[in-house]
Order: sequence, then structure tokens, then C-alpha cells
Amino acid sequence: MTRFAFLLLFSLSALLAQDPLFSAAGEFSRPQNYREWIYLTSGIGMNYGSDTESAQPAFDNVFVKPEAYRVFVNTGQWPEKTVFVLEVRRSESHGSINRAGRFQTDVLAVEATVKDSARYPEGWAYFAFGSGDALLEKTKSLPQKSACNQCHRANAAVENTFVQFYPTLLEIAKAKGTLNPRFSQSAPSAK
Amino acid sequence: MTRFAFLLLFSLSALLAQDPLFSAAGEFSRPQNYREWIYLTSGIGMNYGSDTESAQPAFDNVFVKPEAYRVFVNTGQWPEKTVFVLEVRRSESHGSINRAGRFQTDVLAVEATVKDSARYPEGWAYFAFGSGDALLEKTKSLPQKSACNQCHRANAAVENTFVQFYPTLLEIAKAKGTLNPRFSQSAPSAK
Repeated sequence: MTRFAFLLLFSLSALLAQDPLFSAAGEFSRPQNYREWIYLTSGIGMNYGSDTESAQPAFDNVFVKPEAYRVFVNTGQWPEKTVFVLEVRRSESHGSINRAGRFQTDVLAVEATVKDSARYPEGWAYFAFGSGDALLEKTKSLPQKSACNQCHRANAAVENTFVQFYPTLLEIAKAKGTLNPRFSQSAPSAK
Repeated sequence: MTRFAFLLLFSLSALLAQDPLFSAAGEFSRPQNYREWIYLTSGIGMNYGSDTESAQPAFDNVFVKPEAYRVFVNTGQWPEKTVFVLEVRRSESHGSINRAGRFQTDVLAVEATVKDSARYPEGWAYFAFGSGDALLEKTKSLPQKSACNQCHRANAAVENTFVQFYPTLLEIAKAKGTLNPRFSQSAPSAK
């Protein structure tokens, strides 16, 4: 039995080491092609802590892996290995023919979320790849006590994801009945 | 020869009638799956005519057909049958945990652009599918004197497209040398 357990452990380690999303040291690689994934939404100047409007609000664009999106469309739930990318871009105004409003320019930051219950007891882990021109190639997950983890766990509409801000997915979650009970109760008028 | 010309005309008509993008009457069908195309950018409150900021600025999300995107990545130019969709969505604030900034909600309008030099002398045509809950299933192109046509023709960075506002494509157009000469000269500091 001991030998069997050892073999099992060894096989599991080998399996985890082969995971294309993670290095053997458990670091997650920054996705290179997320701009070709499925787009979910953009916000501008989104702030969850303060009601002070930014004079230079950044856009945030949300993308999800196509295979995870297709599962969500059919079930209203996220499969294991779901990956989200949050891309933050500088906003500008009065460029080219633009005279009001704001448009997107440089990348300011890239973050990611991964659903992987085998690696993370909470199921979801968060990754910050730094900012601007010095984006990290790979990184370990933020601690489970991070602001990202705590806020998503407490406030997300579906599992740990802010589907309340993804208009096309919110309709699907309502139709499939997969909104988190706490979210449904706290936001009865959410549409 | 007359008979040959008639046959040629007949064949051309049959070919055009079979075009999956257009009805026999030349109406363009509103794309149903554009949210699964390639995302290019979003703006908010974008105004080209007035510098008055809107109190209720709308988001606009731009998508392009994946096959056209792949050609552009390789060449910096758009192939025939390129289709863009501009989706306009209402913005809201102070929903769920949001305390500042704006996020996207309902669809306000859907518009499209098609490159089809066989149908349109200018190469590009513009389509407005109306607004909100009453989107048209198909429509004819706007007249070539429309504000859309005139503004794109005069101000676009690549062919008739506002690549100056699509940050990932602007880099490609600069690398491939496909910026319109007038755009390059009028915006020497554009990056």
C-alpha cells in the first residue's frame, strides 16, 4: 500500500507538472493570446471601495477562454481550468477626431483568474502580472486573504465571478438559475 | 455576344444572390454571433462633432470577423467581406458593489460596416440596425453621402477603418506601413 501511495503521489505530481497552465513551481504563465478569446465587458474607472471619480479613469477589458465560455453558455457554470484575463488600459480623450468621451490606449496592467480546485482549496486563484511595460511572464497566485479573493468570494454573482457586470452572461445565469443565493437576495432588482 | 453578356450578367446576379451576407434585395443581415468575434476596443461617450461631455455616456464595443482579423494581423489590410460590428451599450454606475466609474448594461444600438468592392463603388458600406429592443433583422446600406461614409473616408487611419482607436491593430498597421498617407501626415505624434 505504501508503494502504491507513493506511485499515486508520483503520478499526481507528474500530472500537475505537465499542466500547460502552470510551471512545476506552481507559477501561472501570463496568457499571450487573450485578445483572441471571448470578450465579456469593459468598464471605466471602476471602483469598489471609494466613490471618488478618477480624473484619469482606466478602462478594464474582460476576456475568458473560449472553451470555458461555451460551457457557461450551456450550463451557467464555469468548468475547471476556466481562465479569465482582466486587461487594464489607459484612457485618453481629444485624440484624432475625438472631441468628447474617452478611448483606449496603452496597457497599464494584466491580471488573471483561474478555476482549479485541485490546486486551490477555494477553487479560484488570482494572479497579478504587474504593470505597463514590465509585465511578468509568470507568477504565483495571490494569497487567499488578498483583497481580490475576499471581494470575489463575498460579492460575485456566479461562483467567484462578477457576472453582474457581464451583460450577456447575466442573462444566461438568470435563465439557468446559477446566481449565487446571496447575490440574488441582495440584489432583487438586478436585471 | 449579346447572349454571352446576358449569361454573364445572369451568372453574376446568381452569384450575388447566393452571398450569405446579403439578401437577393441587397439587404445585409444583422450578425447574430458577433459577441464571439474578435474584440477590438471600447470607448465611452465618444463624440466626433461636439466637445460636450454626456451625462449618460454610452459605451461602444467594436468586433471584427475572425477571418478578417487574421488577414489584418498578417498584412495590415482588410480583405473583401470584412465585417465590423459596433455595439452600443448603456452605461450605469453604483450597481452591485460599484461605487465609482461606469459599467455596461443593455444594448442601445447595433451598427455594421462591410467591405465589398463588388457591391459598393467605395468599397465600404455602413448599416444601422436601429436601436434597443427593436433591432432590424436586415437593412440596406446607408447612402454614400451619409455622415458615416464621409467621416470614415476623411479620417480613418487604415482604409475606411478607425484603427487609430484600436490599440492592438494600430501597432500592426504602423509595422506593416499601411496607415493612410493623410492620417500619417495629420497625426505625426500618433502612437
